[in-house]
Amino acid sequence: MIDIVILGAGNVASHFIHAFSQSQDINISQIYNHRPESLRDFSDFETTKEIDKIKTAEVYLVCIKDDKVQKIVQSINQPQAIIAHTSGSLPLLKTSNRDAVFYPLQTFSKDKTISFKDLPICLETEYESDFKVLKKLVHALGAKPYAVSTIQRQELHLAAVFVCNFVNHLYHIGHEICAQKNLPFDILKPLIKETADKINFKTPNQAQTGPAIRHDQTTINRHIQQLDNPNYQEIYRYLTNSIQKSNE
Amino acid sequence: MIDIVILGAGNVASHFIHAFSQSQDINISQIYNHRPESLRDFSDFETTKEIDKIKTAEVYLVCIKDDKVQKIVQSINQPQAIIAHTSGSLPLLKTSNRDAVFYPLQTFSKDKTISFKDLPICLETEYESDFKVLKKLVHALGAKPYAVSTIQRQELHLAAVFVCNFVNHLYHIGHEICAQKNLPFDILKPLIKETADKINFKTPNQAQTGPAIRHDQTTINRHIQQLDNPNYQEIYRYLTNSIQKSNE
Repeated sequence: MIDIVILGAGNVASHFIHAFSQSQDINISQIYNHRPESLRDFSDFETTKEIDKIKTAEVYLVCIKDDKVQKIVQSINQPQAIIAHTSGSLPLLKTSNRDAVFYPLQTFSKDKTISFKDLPICLETEYESDFKVLKKLVHALGAKPYAVSTIQRQELHLAAVFVCNFVNHLYHIGHEICAQKNLPFDILKPLIKETADKINFKTPNQAQTGPAIRHDQTTINRHIQQLDNPNYQEIYRYLTNSIQKSNE
Repeated sequence: MIDIVILGAGNVASHFIHAFSQSQDINISQIYNHRPESLRDFSDFETTKEIDKIKTAEVYLVCIKDDKVQKIVQSINQPQAIIAHTSGSLPLLKTSNRDAVFYPLQTFSKDKTISFKDLPICLETEYESDFKVLKKLVHALGAKPYAVSTIQRQELHLAAVFVCNFVNHLYHIGHEICAQKNLPFDILKPLIKETADKINFKTPNQAQTGPAIRHDQTTINRHIQQLDNPNYQEIYRYLTNSIQKSNE
């Protein structure tokens, strides 16, 4: 049984709390947040709003905003414990604690449960023995551990922006086009599903279809004319150009 | 039992031939292609390479390149039959035939079977009675018919470029980043799946996450620095800007 303390009560923290509380190998001994109103949802757990009342644990999981992480980690004085942040961007910290990283490569939304089954969790530790402890945490979630360096993790975080945040914005553009023409967004969903599924069978490069890769200039020109949002026109031009450049 | 003739033997035609041949309500009476070598894969069917040897049927399904459709349709002289093209871009033709449109909103790749179950097929017909016939074809496939005008279909085709072709290119960028940093592309797959799945529970606008929507300028700047491909930098800038504009 591993004792852990969760720092933070936001989106990522909530998903971890939910997932860890379902594992018999993990004991969430405390949840910390400086805003007591954020702790209301966690009345089943011991909570604190004061960092100096934090309990002793084997692992501290820091699920708070990037710009507050360093300060919070430094105010925990538990040199025997592992203190892991969950950020995709921050380096492995070098404080007086046993610093580590526990970065789940996933998009978390409020009100939507995430399956941790096979979810990649990127681990980095100051000490090799700590890596084994974090691996146990990952396995307790049913997730998949990856040893990922700071540089690799920062690249993954960038890749995630492309394949998740930017992809979702393209869905938004499709949604907007449908709404403007009185078409249900549902009509696009099988296409969205198949596009995401196809990369399990082909590389994205092999899976590429559409007017850009066919150099179908008539369709490309008409599409740009159809768009009345200049931002979307530019996105159309740059992505078309980039698809063509990738295949030269 | 509806008799149909398929014109074309490429990617889209192959998927339709496969799907229709599994329905007991449809008889594929002939497959036409001007290049006899393209007909080799369809030895179980009657085939022809000469347009004037085309058989009489109730429906002709034209699955060929946009710029050849008009000519082929005009050379079929079957005024009692429905001649439907499968293009997302072309208008409803006005030939001496009973013109129609049968546009499947999906991305077809060679060597990857598509489920037609619930797949949206956009229908448009010159005559209302023909609409019912095409609807039977759609039901024979287990697909979902939608009455879609030419203008709506052209907008859907544009939306499809965003949510499929452009999305796939963003997957390609993620793939490239992983390859450069010796990370397996598999690590991004649960994120890709969850992003595509999320729009079944939230609108894409509600589902948006990431540094752009958070206006996290430190991360945005570092990400642009990390990219060495100027095309990708521009795509990053335009998509970030567009996400922020969409939420003003």
